[in-house]
Amino acid sequence: MPLTARRLADPDHWSLASAIRVLSMDAVEQANSGHPGMPMGMADVATVLWRKHLKFDASAPNWFDRDRFILSAGHGSMLIYSLLHLTGFEQMSLEQLKNFRQWGAATAGHPEYGHAEGIETTTGPLGQGLATSVGFAMAEAKMRAEFGEELCDHRTWVIAGDGCLMEGISQEAIALAGHLRLGRLIVLWDDNKITIDGALSLSDSTDQLKRFEASGWRTLSCDGHDPADIDRALTAAAQDDGRPVLVACNTVIGFGSAKKGGTSGVHGSPLGADEIAATRSAYAWEHAPFELPEEITARWREIGARGAAAREAWAARVDALPEDRREAFAARVSGETSDKLVPAIAALKQKASTDAPKVATRKASELVLEVVNPILPETIGGSADLTGSNNTKTADLGIFDAQNRAGRYVHYGIREHGMAAAMNGLALHGGFRPYGGTFMAFTDYARGAMRLSALMGVPVVYVMTHDSIGLGEDGPTHQPVEHLAMLRATPNTWTFRPADLVETAEAWELALTADGTPSVLALSRQNLPTLRLDHTDDNLTARGAYVLREASGAPQAILMASGSEVEIAVKAAEALEAEGIPTRVVSVPCMELFRDQPEDYRANVLPEGPVRVAVEAAVRQPWDWLLMGERGAEKRAGFIGMTGFGASAPADRLYKEFGITPEATVAKVKALL
Amino acid sequence: MPLTARRLADPDHWSLASAIRVLSMDAVEQANSGHPGMPMGMADVATVLWRKHLKFDASAPNWFDRDRFILSAGHGSMLIYSLLHLTGFEQMSLEQLKNFRQWGAATAGHPEYGHAEGIETTTGPLGQGLATSVGFAMAEAKMRAEFGEELCDHRTWVIAGDGCLMEGISQEAIALAGHLRLGRLIVLWDDNKITIDGALSLSDSTDQLKRFEASGWRTLSCDGHDPADIDRALTAAAQDDGRPVLVACNTVIGFGSAKKGGTSGVHGSPLGADEIAATRSAYAWEHAPFELPEEITARWREIGARGAAAREAWAARVDALPEDRREAFAARVSGETSDKLVPAIAALKQKASTDAPKVATRKASELVLEVVNPILPETIGGSADLTGSNNTKTADLGIFDAQNRAGRYVHYGIREHGMAAAMNGLALHGGFRPYGGTFMAFTDYARGAMRLSALMGVPVVYVMTHDSIGLGEDGPTHQPVEHLAMLRATPNTWTFRPADLVETAEAWELALTADGTPSVLALSRQNLPTLRLDHTDDNLTARGAYVLREASGAPQAILMASGSEVEIAVKAAEALEAEGIPTRVVSVPCMELFRDQPEDYRANVLPEGPVRVAVEAAVRQPWDWLLMGERGAEKRAGFIGMTGFGASAPADRLYKEFGITPEATVAKVKALL
Repeated sequence: MPLTARRLADPDHWSLASAIRVLSMDAVEQANSGHPGMPMGMADVATVLWRKHLKFDASAPNWFDRDRFILSAGHGSMLIYSLLHLTGFEQMSLEQLKNFRQWGAATAGHPEYGHAEGIETTTGPLGQGLATSVGFAMAEAKMRAEFGEELCDHRTWVIAGDGCLMEGISQEAIALAGHLRLGRLIVLWDDNKITIDGALSLSDSTDQLKRFEASGWRTLSCDGHDPADIDRALTAAAQDDGRPVLVACNTVIGFGSAKKGGTSGVHGSPLGADEIAATRSAYAWEHAPFELPEEITARWREIGARGAAAREAWAARVDALPEDRREAFAARVSGETSDKLVPAIAALKQKASTDAPKVATRKASELVLEVVNPILPETIGGSADLTGSNNTKTADLGIFDAQNRAGRYVHYGIREHGMAAAMNGLALHGGFRPYGGTFMAFTDYARGAMRLSALMGVPVVYVMTHDSIGLGEDGPTHQPVEHLAMLRATPNTWTFRPADLVETAEAWELALTADGTPSVLALSRQNLPTLRLDHTDDNLTARGAYVLREASGAPQAILMASGSEVEIAVKAAEALEAEGIPTRVVSVPCMELFRDQPEDYRANVLPEGPVRVAVEAAVRQPWDWLLMGERGAEKRAGFIGMTGFGASAPADRLYKEFGITPEATVAKVKALL
Repeated sequence: MPLTARRLADPDHWSLASAIRVLSMDAVEQANSGHPGMPMGMADVATVLWRKHLKFDASAPNWFDRDRFILSAGHGSMLIYSLLHLTGFEQMSLEQLKNFRQWGAATAGHPEYGHAEGIETTTGPLGQGLATSVGFAMAEAKMRAEFGEELCDHRTWVIAGDGCLMEGISQEAIALAGHLRLGRLIVLWDDNKITIDGALSLSDSTDQLKRFEASGWRTLSCDGHDPADIDRALTAAAQDDGRPVLVACNTVIGFGSAKKGGTSGVHGSPLGADEIAATRSAYAWEHAPFELPEEITARWREIGARGAAAREAWAARVDALPEDRREAFAARVSGETSDKLVPAIAALKQKASTDAPKVATRKASELVLEVVNPILPETIGGSADLTGSNNTKTADLGIFDAQNRAGRYVHYGIREHGMAAAMNGLALHGGFRPYGGTFMAFTDYARGAMRLSALMGVPVVYVMTHDSIGLGEDGPTHQPVEHLAMLRATPNTWTFRPADLVETAEAWELALTADGTPSVLALSRQNLPTLRLDHTDDNLTARGAYVLREASGAPQAILMASGSEVEIAVKAAEALEAEGIPTRVVSVPCMELFRDQPEDYRANVLPEGPVRVAVEAAVRQPWDWLLMGERGAEKRAGFIGMTGFGASAPADRLYKEFGITPEATVAKVKALL
């Protein structure tokens, strides 16, 4: 249908959608950077969605029972910025649109969680929004089951592009969503047949509808520029029949641009002044850049207020709840951790110091979870098909699946990346504190979503077991060597590598009370002795590093280690002490937290003077600053660890072959002295 | 069908397959570690495949025109070890089987490339084998197009499990394979409905046949324990109709174990002595562990010799080729780089030093490729849908696709992980030196396969552009901060971050002549001046770090930097020199290579005494050893770089806001002095 015919067929809709298009092309032009094609192509779909289907109230952006809108195709960020501005989200002023992609603006190149209300999650790395939305939909289904439809009754709407569907993470996401029968997850696919390199047909021939159907999805299609047809499809999509829904929206990228529309030329570059003028006129839009006629603003504001009544009715229902249920709901939504946690962890630590069990830290983690999960109803655990190895499932959790929404344990399947993204979504939605396990080496598979946990500051917990060559026979593909370095190099990520049950409990306490930082627990497969035999209520792991064994006199040597190698350091220290060399052992369960300590604490733990040797069955890179001091300190420093990949053999043999032993540590100290 | 009926129906097949099963369960038992279920379940399929379909000659394991056999479900490694031993691969002695999973054995926990002939690629991280096989099949199709069926006419057979199909990378792989119409890629899916956590139905409901069909695959099914039915399916699968083929093999995991067969209990644990005895008897196998009756060995050896005649005929055809074609073929298969490369790079460097262009290093990389690609017919380029941004496509390459196998450029689509794995496969197959591009931040998505490049020592080249906050407005999701640390922490990976066209050319030369190490080229989006103005034929990048600008006198300060920050270091040095502070600038394009230099070279470049400041728009972690010296050197050291994630704004603004400027560098030096 020609443009004019479309405009005349529904002028009301046309002007609303045109406002998005024009704002998008103008903001990209002003920034001389950005992606106008997608917002221009999906403006009609987004207009119908926000106008007729999305449950929200612009005056209360964080209303718990709002529908979630996730722009998985995050490069089209001007679409969401336009929508937030037009519907009246206070933080998304016109000034912000004018400062698109500029320093300090809420309107970053890609939507950044925390920059403005209404941005539910950070997107941009393709597929992440789609995979995160699975977590949102899981959270909704679970809260609904726990608190009833009167408190939780909303949908998760996602706009995804071809890039999202081509990324592997999308398969993990859609298979999981189909399996879990997340019928209120609706993905609007911007089916424009264009990618950055040109026609989609250059790189893909997939029948996406068939593919989604194969994973238990319902599929629909619509003309993505016909408001009536869009409305029909979205109405059908909103009927929850247990299957998540894919709506293929047939669109033209850069819709309205005669020269560039329908081509990759409009994907990621400004249209240019001439083409913008021509397109403006094709839209019959007569206003200057960033000038919105009052009448259109007013109509968009009405849309923004559409959900107010529903929100008020919801609030009244919350108020009318019996006190205990109201409090339980409020506690869950608050994200705060129960006061019961700290004393429970302290009691566990006390018992551990007394009983001194010899267990793998993965088992220690399970012992902690057995205390934690009954206290914290917000935890939702899971594993990427390594439940028995990750020790992530405790007795009281049921299985969360299509039949049992009350369950609190998720069999994520062999989908590390999808699991990590779903955990982000569960946490972002509210009501949950997710943790999930896999082998530490498969951090590689989950990296994309783990980085977003850090960037967004989502306090999810990654339970990464089998954290070194100590896993033994599975060999180098399964043995992390560089992963601790990688995680410690990632900003805003706490990498815990506890040495025993006590440190494991402390790490969990920190992870579960964190409010802006994800945690990674690097846990051993092999058994480790309890080393913290003197109980203290203080959480020493919170200091990042601390003196575990003091030297018998003024220390001549300081041994530092983490996790399974602390035992080696302690043995080496004993041997050195026996030879008359006073040796201090410093346990380093979390470098990031140690870095945050006051300088005098750090200097007390690691004074200048003694020989320093670090022991960790991984690469040296993250230890250099501790070995050398931040401004250079100690010439006499050494490292006992890995310089290459591991190998397949029993763990004891590997430690010996790679020279990570008390004997090697003793020898290194003596050589340095 | 009951076991006995199956045995009696085809006793010949039964005994051959039983040999695999018994070896597998015995080796796992002896190691007290491993995965017996999969080899026991897939022994029938593997027996029929190797006996009747796989083209190979055990006496010439590296015969170029052999079919490739890839065990994507690598945990079932005893399957391939058994097959290699039984068919007579010399390196796979019975001793190796007895030493399964022990130190120094070829029989690692998961199949490791390079441990023994016949292991075509390292597998274990699920999905990697399947995705790598796409590269193998691409290589075969392309070599066939280039040299004809008389020289290249083989298939790629893959055994994959549910884990392989659940991992996201599998979707990238199957969509790419279907799009490219790799009709000689045949995936045998071990459809046993069991994963580690229990029934597959705990975590998945996908209709895999439908899913593969959606991506243009042909699908077949068979009873995975009926040799006749397997043969029928494999015969059909081997008919190339342009579509890759999935064969669903309905099997029972741990087939033959009455107690544990068909359960997850047999997935990853030894069966135990009693159950092994019972299973042995169910197989009617009367021999002791690792004892193979001569008759069975003889029949398996016959199978191993099946391909000898075909191989000899192939060799005769090679010998009969006209000399130029024979040499061209031999050169391609050798993996050696043409002598023409080094002088061509030298000429390019000379011109660059003279012309001193100001170009982004991504553009510099394109200029190098324009020289390289016409010289090296083995290069095959590509990008994950960022061709224009990665500058990976040169004029003379055509597009490699379903129609044009002569093309040398691949539109991999938005599939970083699939691309990286396919590159591994292309290189491992032989005949190709692949390179592929994406944004540096999306290293995260490709990590799984990039780690395997390093572990296997496959010299592929990752062209990672937009390598810092210097990319500007796309914001923190697209701005690498920790990725240089992550790559530098990874063993056997050369991370190049060239500063200008000259260093870019040198890095490419090293990457293209590497024979056991993958390379990552971290390249700028923004323009950079040529800094190497004095031409030298020597490849200075090969030293890893070198003096780019000497101080005017005995240096009081040394500035180190890589890539786009070398310009900042040079400007800072000029300012310091102007203030009378003799300052040396050291360019550090590749830390790994600098680490490999003799100690006196390193000490000459970085003498003790002067203040050291490093400048890199990334986290400090990898620089500590250079700042402090390997055994501790310099108290007075500082770092100018990133401490957290980036932001969205024009690049210049970001450098200023994050304090990565000549002024900040000067101030840091002065404060340290």
